[in-house]
Amino acid sequence: MRVYLDWAATAPRDTDILVEYARLSAEYWANPSSRHAEGRKSREFLEDARRRCAQILKVQSNQLYFTSGGTESNHLPILSLLTRPTHGSIATSILEHPSIIEQLKAMEATGWHTRVIPSTEEGHITSDAVCASLAEDTALVLVQAVNNETGAIQDTASIARALMINRNGKRKPHFHVDAVQAIGKIDFFCNEPGIDSASLSAHKIGGLPGSGLLYIAKKTEAFLRGGGQEGGLRSGTEDVAAAGALALALEKAQKGPEKIRSISSVLYSILTDIPNLHFVPSTREHLDPRFSPAIYQCAIDGIPGEVAVRMLDEAGCAVSTGSACSSRKNKRPVLEAMRINPETRQNAFRISIGETTSHEQLSFLGQALKEISRSN
Amino acid sequence: MRVYLDWAATAPRDTDILVEYARLSAEYWANPSSRHAEGRKSREFLEDARRRCAQILKVQSNQLYFTSGGTESNHLPILSLLTRPTHGSIATSILEHPSIIEQLKAMEATGWHTRVIPSTEEGHITSDAVCASLAEDTALVLVQAVNNETGAIQDTASIARALMINRNGKRKPHFHVDAVQAIGKIDFFCNEPGIDSASLSAHKIGGLPGSGLLYIAKKTEAFLRGGGQEGGLRSGTEDVAAAGALALALEKAQKGPEKIRSISSVLYSILTDIPNLHFVPSTREHLDPRFSPAIYQCAIDGIPGEVAVRMLDEAGCAVSTGSACSSRKNKRPVLEAMRINPETRQNAFRISIGETTSHEQLSFLGQALKEISRSN
Repeated sequence: MRVYLDWAATAPRDTDILVEYARLSAEYWANPSSRHAEGRKSREFLEDARRRCAQILKVQSNQLYFTSGGTESNHLPILSLLTRPTHGSIATSILEHPSIIEQLKAMEATGWHTRVIPSTEEGHITSDAVCASLAEDTALVLVQAVNNETGAIQDTASIARALMINRNGKRKPHFHVDAVQAIGKIDFFCNEPGIDSASLSAHKIGGLPGSGLLYIAKKTEAFLRGGGQEGGLRSGTEDVAAAGALALALEKAQKGPEKIRSISSVLYSILTDIPNLHFVPSTREHLDPRFSPAIYQCAIDGIPGEVAVRMLDEAGCAVSTGSACSSRKNKRPVLEAMRINPETRQNAFRISIGETTSHEQLSFLGQALKEISRSN
Repeated sequence: MRVYLDWAATAPRDTDILVEYARLSAEYWANPSSRHAEGRKSREFLEDARRRCAQILKVQSNQLYFTSGGTESNHLPILSLLTRPTHGSIATSILEHPSIIEQLKAMEATGWHTRVIPSTEEGHITSDAVCASLAEDTALVLVQAVNNETGAIQDTASIARALMINRNGKRKPHFHVDAVQAIGKIDFFCNEPGIDSASLSAHKIGGLPGSGLLYIAKKTEAFLRGGGQEGGLRSGTEDVAAAGALALALEKAQKGPEKIRSISSVLYSILTDIPNLHFVPSTREHLDPRFSPAIYQCAIDGIPGEVAVRMLDEAGCAVSTGSACSSRKNKRPVLEAMRINPETRQNAFRISIGETTSHEQLSFLGQALKEISRSN
């Protein structure tokens, strides 16, 4: 038996979505920028897919841009700054995904500097911390909706409201929310007042890799340019079938939060039964509203996370240490930012579930974890 | 009957490749950055796909990076300049695709300026013109392998050699070749000495949109950053199945140039039979080695290109005016750069074929063109 519990890295491919992609790809293969009948047919379908996505996300279709995935959706608002005549600063939470943290390092070479918003010990970013981090020249603020390692939910709606009032007549910075780990997992709405853009990735909700969306409340100037597709904001021939597959993935993901909440309750009970296992942060409670029910960061005393992950893999359970994107670096910057002690940091690993995770799978995990904990 | 003759915009989806994608997507769905068994399986397949691509392109696997397509593959070497401490100039042929021309306009805001390499009246870029355009501070030279509107083949191997010798001890600029319209259509090799990078797109050869390759002879510093995938050069979760589909597309495209050459000969004869139709440039000959056999730019006297395209569409033939990427702009910068007279420019349209284009399809086109020409 194999039990896949690394949904935060990617969801297992949903067969319905894959079949839909293949069907659409065979039918809407023409370039939607072409003016002939084949091209117009693709264009119509593409715009219909955009409307379906907009309906679920409760935004306007013209606020949605199809991208190559979460990384690109996070990059676009950052790169847009390069079209401005003057430089300034970018404020980012210390907990962000590498597609933001690393890109901001690259931006330093262009004259833009980073202001880091600190985390609480439980992995949360407060509105106060965001506002305290702003400088007069802060043009962009980036805070994720859900942390990919601990599941910490950030109150991006409150942060957005705080950014709207707290500036003494200064122009409000653009507020971008990385919602990659939120969509389909918790109730998250990118149309909150003050959220200027939000990113999502298809493959985290059963869709295809290489496909994502960028929500932008009010169109910004694009730095990456080309054929002018996607309203000039994202050039490159559109993958029309992937857009349709993403619309279907979003439709299916609407029931995700409820299903995940239910199975997460089971997982919490199983995990609290494992000797020497504790949550990171340790204060996490049953169905704790401050955390995504899809992600648990845990640590077993005396067993390095790397070892736990390997032992679980051998026992048939796929889990991970940090994010897949950081897996080759052996660093835990998110846990460091939370001032987690070095031993717990070293022992920490992530279990992440999805809407098809079953009781049976979690019981299997529980048995494996008990044996690992006992082996110490 | 519908006859699709707009292969330069996109190739009709190849069923074998689509079936392969679906199969691979169901099997290699895990994130290749994950360390568990599922992730390692994806990683192994991804690296195998890269080796298959490298074998066909006659390069090393570690010189190939999977990207989201031709636009991104063209962007990456340009954006890499933003990691440099000082600014300079970029020399580009005036005939390049919008993903280069428009991106260089965006680069102006960051302090990099553009030097334009002029075209001959037949749409060619000579080594002399390239060398004459260089300044001391030129860090990057961009010339396409095949023009997407006229099919003009640029002698990128000669240009590369000229760039290697003609610099009086100056550092050779990075030479990037946009090979999107070359791969699978003509014999093109990106491993020529002096070619530092080359881009290709999967959907132009029957593969999937949102998938491409960047060849880089010697790794450059990445400006776009994130999870560090693709050797740090292209971050974002890899679409493993798309990589496999691209490898298959390249394998199948190996016989493309020969098949296209053969059917192109038929098309040339049919086109020369149409009253009042002439080629753009008018000097193009039968199996002219200076042009890709896959692309013909033509004009019918007295009939605007837009009208010809619409009439052909109504008659059952899908062709286009300029590139799909420029189709909504009504401008013909490539033809202007060739000093084509305004009337011909207005009348010009593109016919582009692929390896499954048949005699029957071309006879159908010939009939439609004759009627349109007579209608004038």
